[in-house]
Amino acid sequence: MTPGGLDRTDPEGAVAAAAKRNSNWGRWGTDDILGTLNFLDEAKRREGAALVRRGASFSLAQTFDADGPPKGWRRRTNPVHTMLDTGLEAERGTQGFPHGIGGADDVVFMPLQASTQWDGLGHIFDHGMAYNGRRAGDVVTSEGDKVTGIETTAGLIAGRGVLLDVGRVAGDAAGELPDGFAITVEHLEATVAAHGDSARVGRGDLLLVRTGRLARARREGWGDYAGGPSAGLSFTTADWLHDTEIAGIATDTWGFEVRPNEFDEAFQPLHQVAIPHIGLFLGEMWDLDALAADCAADGVHDFWLTAAPIPVTGAVGAPVAPVAVK
Amino acid sequence: MTPGGLDRTDPEGAVAAAAKRNSNWGRWGTDDILGTLNFLDEAKRREGAALVRRGASFSLAQTFDADGPPKGWRRRTNPVHTMLDTGLEAERGTQGFPHGIGGADDVVFMPLQASTQWDGLGHIFDHGMAYNGRRAGDVVTSEGDKVTGIETTAGLIAGRGVLLDVGRVAGDAAGELPDGFAITVEHLEATVAAHGDSARVGRGDLLLVRTGRLARARREGWGDYAGGPSAGLSFTTADWLHDTEIAGIATDTWGFEVRPNEFDEAFQPLHQVAIPHIGLFLGEMWDLDALAADCAADGVHDFWLTAAPIPVTGAVGAPVAPVAVK
Amino acid sequence: MTPGGLDRTDPEGAVAAAAKRNSNWGRWGTDDILGTLNFLDEAKRREGAALVRRGASFSLAQTFDADGPPKGWRRRTNPVHTMLDTGLEAERGTQGFPHGIGGADDVVFMPLQASTQWDGLGHIFDHGMAYNGRRAGDVVTSEGDKVTGIETTAGLIAGRGVLLDVGRVAGDAAGELPDGFAITVEHLEATVAAHGDSARVGRGDLLLVRTGRLARARREGWGDYAGGPSAGLSFTTADWLHDTEIAGIATDTWGFEVRPNEFDEAFQPLHQVAIPHIGLFLGEMWDLDALAADCAADGVHDFWLTAAPIPVTGAVGAPVAPVAVK
Amino acid sequence: MTPGGLDRTDPEGAVAAAAKRNSNWGRWGTDDILGTLNFLDEAKRREGAALVRRGASFSLAQTFDADGPPKGWRRRTNPVHTMLDTGLEAERGTQGFPHGIGGADDVVFMPLQASTQWDGLGHIFDHGMAYNGRRAGDVVTSEGDKVTGIETTAGLIAGRGVLLDVGRVAGDAAGELPDGFAITVEHLEATVAAHGDSARVGRGDLLLVRTGRLARARREGWGDYAGGPSAGLSFTTADWLHDTEIAGIATDTWGFEVRPNEFDEAFQPLHQVAIPHIGLFLGEMWDLDALAADCAADGVHDFWLTAAPIPVTGAVGAPVAPVAVK
Repeated sequence: MTPGGLDRTDPEGAVAAAAKRNSNWGRWGTDDILGTLNFLDEAKRREGAALVRRGASFSLAQTFDADGPPKGWRRRTNPVHTMLDTGLEAERGTQGFPHGIGGADDVVFMPLQASTQWDGLGHIFDHGMAYNGRRAGDVVTSEGDKVTGIETTAGLIAGRGVLLDVGRVAGDAAGELPDGFAITVEHLEATVAAHGDSARVGRGDLLLVRTGRLARARREGWGDYAGGPSAGLSFTTADWLHDTEIAGIATDTWGFEVRPNEFDEAFQPLHQVAIPHIGLFLGEMWDLDALAADCAADGVHDFWLTAAPIPVTGAVGAPVAPVAVK
Repeated sequence: MTPGGLDRTDPEGAVAAAAKRNSNWGRWGTDDILGTLNFLDEAKRREGAALVRRGASFSLAQTFDADGPPKGWRRRTNPVHTMLDTGLEAERGTQGFPHGIGGADDVVFMPLQASTQWDGLGHIFDHGMAYNGRRAGDVVTSEGDKVTGIETTAGLIAGRGVLLDVGRVAGDAAGELPDGFAITVEHLEATVAAHGDSARVGRGDLLLVRTGRLARARREGWGDYAGGPSAGLSFTTADWLHDTEIAGIATDTWGFEVRPNEFDEAFQPLHQVAIPHIGLFLGEMWDLDALAADCAADGVHDFWLTAAPIPVTGAVGAPVAPVAVK
Repeated sequence: MTPGGLDRTDPEGAVAAAAKRNSNWGRWGTDDILGTLNFLDEAKRREGAALVRRGASFSLAQTFDADGPPKGWRRRTNPVHTMLDTGLEAERGTQGFPHGIGGADDVVFMPLQASTQWDGLGHIFDHGMAYNGRRAGDVVTSEGDKVTGIETTAGLIAGRGVLLDVGRVAGDAAGELPDGFAITVEHLEATVAAHGDSARVGRGDLLLVRTGRLARARREGWGDYAGGPSAGLSFTTADWLHDTEIAGIATDTWGFEVRPNEFDEAFQPLHQVAIPHIGLFLGEMWDLDALAADCAADGVHDFWLTAAPIPVTGAVGAPVAPVAVK
Repeated sequence: MTPGGLDRTDPEGAVAAAAKRNSNWGRWGTDDILGTLNFLDEAKRREGAALVRRGASFSLAQTFDADGPPKGWRRRTNPVHTMLDTGLEAERGTQGFPHGIGGADDVVFMPLQASTQWDGLGHIFDHGMAYNGRRAGDVVTSEGDKVTGIETTAGLIAGRGVLLDVGRVAGDAAGELPDGFAITVEHLEATVAAHGDSARVGRGDLLLVRTGRLARARREGWGDYAGGPSAGLSFTTADWLHDTEIAGIATDTWGFEVRPNEFDEAFQPLHQVAIPHIGLFLGEMWDLDALAADCAADGVHDFWLTAAPIPVTGAVGAPVAPVAVK
């Protein structure tokens, strides 16, 4: 057993138990496709908007380009951005346009989870079952997610954001947690306590948890940022993620959960509870550093957050350019 | 001469004159890369956030998929979204993951201006010159826009939005303007007057102009939505776009300006003034219909608007999922 | 009943009967992945090479570009070819290379069946079964065709080619068959007879059947070349395709079989017999016109043919640049 | 000076001198776009076809997939192959097709030089000039190579192939040359001598030079196969490449020339002479091992070779699936 009571040899049993305790299947009806976004209502948006005091805005997106963290795991490559026309043709005057107008245009090929993104509810399954008790193959086929595609969240993800800077509270002098550091409920609550009232977490909130992993990658190079060891949420936080009734949660890591995972042979077991059972939206590879520095400076850890994913029809995850405003 | 004083035979002269009257080159220094986003400051964000009264949110994005308006003009195809893994493999149990976890994952290939998007400042040139007096070929090469790439706007595009529903004020019973309808300053001002004080337009605002073109396409099919005839801004609005000191402007059409353009042989002449000379951010293919219906219902035409493009490094335009909150 | 004895109302029954008569399942062992390519042996290659008399070569490939026949059906778009570097950067001297060297480089995004291609054995299934009695889902998943991927044919498709120019023999003065013209065994045999001994068809041959459909598209524009009406093989040729023991067959049409198909409600029923049951390789969108003109001129209808598909691992079809040499 | 007389400090001078000695500009007229393919005529094809004695065929292509050598240098990633439909949907019966037919279909995104390929004449420039004295920017723009695009070679690259297995003749017991081994004219001639008369090299031949580099990568993993150290042609072979009047040359390495290059600061200087000045077609990443083993076994080093690139319109390089037949 680990300190959190996990039997390292039985991830399947742990997942099953946590799933049973925390299932939201049927909570919002058998047709529900929104999961925890049901918690994010108009009142929460009013509460969030009221947090804009200075008008300072913060981008929480990494850039999308060929120099990002992906290393090709399961065909997740870096984005490749190419041009259809450039300023050079415009200068040369060969574009065929009249009256001196010239243009540049571009295309991109990218895995939808190559950089800052939301996982949709069709991204992860448990024993072939998707969120709300649907068969995985009835939800996501080669045509995409026909039920809970990311476009079904359009316009919803805007509300009160809260930053828990666990890296600063529980990490080293640079505000970074070591790889393999499992963030437990105790760490989360200690961080809330350290930050004060603006960091309270509850129903409908969009929670951001900073580990410092991205800050280190920025300093040292990507290395194994994508898929390698990292601090992250402990599997033992599953009940807390459910009970707090947050609408979504995002981290500055590739995989949200602690890696290596807390079982002998496992792969992202907290995802297996959070997405198909809780119906929770998980954000990954967010850049929380500038916002965190500001929160540390002024002591205010909540803000207005807009984080609408690009509505690629049927996507099981999607790029997002989140903006926090304080 | 047209009613607006345009000599239909001389788009090049008209562009040159409008460019001279409205140039912002050097206004924010020789190194400036933000253009009219300089107008959008923290005070404006505070003003915008204060407009959130009900907490109602509206997505202004079209979906991104193979059924969109692009028809392949200059290689601008529809997005192609494909899966790397699906729920079917998860059900079949062939994904090679432990403890019953399964996953779906996806990629997309798309022109960056295939659906709801912002034009970046490197998208359009005038006689081989880009915004702020740079040579087009020094700005945008095959490697992308190395100076004013869309990622340089990260976090900035959040503030007060204003909807001018010209379709409802000047259009038919369905609230739609006919193709070729040139929206002039008179139409814009009449719409402000009809909407009332909440529709005032000024420095730092993000202006949305609805023509009804998308509503028609939704009803009748895309047809020539991409590149064909449409209502849109008249070339004669160039000075107004400059003088109002708006931070950005978006429409529900493919091309922002009226089409056919108001000269005998022309292609998007207002772009040629607005982007390289004014440094104005143009949004295209936004879906303004649900928001417009709400504004018509409650009579309030301003709101909080967040519209951060996906920061594809070096992009001259980028997908955006704008969210308005009232 | 149609003249060929088809019950137009029962494609499923017709497919089942033809499949039963012509199945090659197990013929080359339960592990076989090559189907009719088993007929193409070294003796056949010697026979083919001996047909090179003048050394005249003919490309049978259409180009691959944005101006091709695809119209987006089931996400089959045209190829999009973009540049990573161009001669303009090379001239400008901004590529960062030493001693005056400059370079251009490029990428492509394309459906593998966007232009001249071979269908692999994993392309078509009958009631969920693939070639040689395998379950379709055991063969082709999101990871591609793990059993009969096109790369398994590497090096094999080179041998004796035979052109049957049915368009010239049975068509109009321009050598073109009308849309909906079903090429029957009688037409094929009459064409062999008209062409003479060089057009005999047998075991291991690579058969090319020209309808004239591409010639018309070249003259009139693509129109519905991709998926629309066309001359093509009759469903009633299934037994002949099996009994002749050809190694592969290609046409100048999008879909190989006559379209509309010869049943009231059907989709490519001959594929359903030919690929999963006969294990026959089908080529589509080949350009046979220059070769056909030469064959008409010299009366020789067989030649050395090399048509190795690009070995994209796991592909169910692949681009090919076939070369015939006489 | 190096043994070959190279001044390691002056690649630019060496390139200029070699270019002057070996230029083919104007040799086939000012409009020529084929370069050394002009040497490959019908007589050569007859000679090549006569070399087919056994009918044994050899694929010289590597596979195209996510596990290849590219590492993302200048956005040259590995191919990403994804499915539009799979056997799983076919089994499930959800594809919407009648009478039990099911299908799989696929797309690919790939750099055109990600695997086995031909360099086109627009791939490399010398001081902003392309083959036959054209300005690089007049040849290759964002729209591709409008003059010497790879599609202009359609049908031509089929003739007599010759393998010089320098790895076996001059390498270690495994038949491999060490990294940095510069293959000189002496090595080439010694290899011809060792192989005997079937290895003679002359006008119109397609020459294959094996270093053993791919065999090592196959054994040890890709490592720096793409762009790292390797055996390859010495810069000093430029005159020989010109004087032999070969039609094309291909190797089993990433970059054709020895790497590191033979100057202190250089990048692919032999390309700079061979492509724009000689107009020579260079093949890279070919898999010569199986063919080489056969040649070593039977002592015959010439054969029929077909190597037509996929005619992507405007491509400066293109995938090819070469087939040799003996």
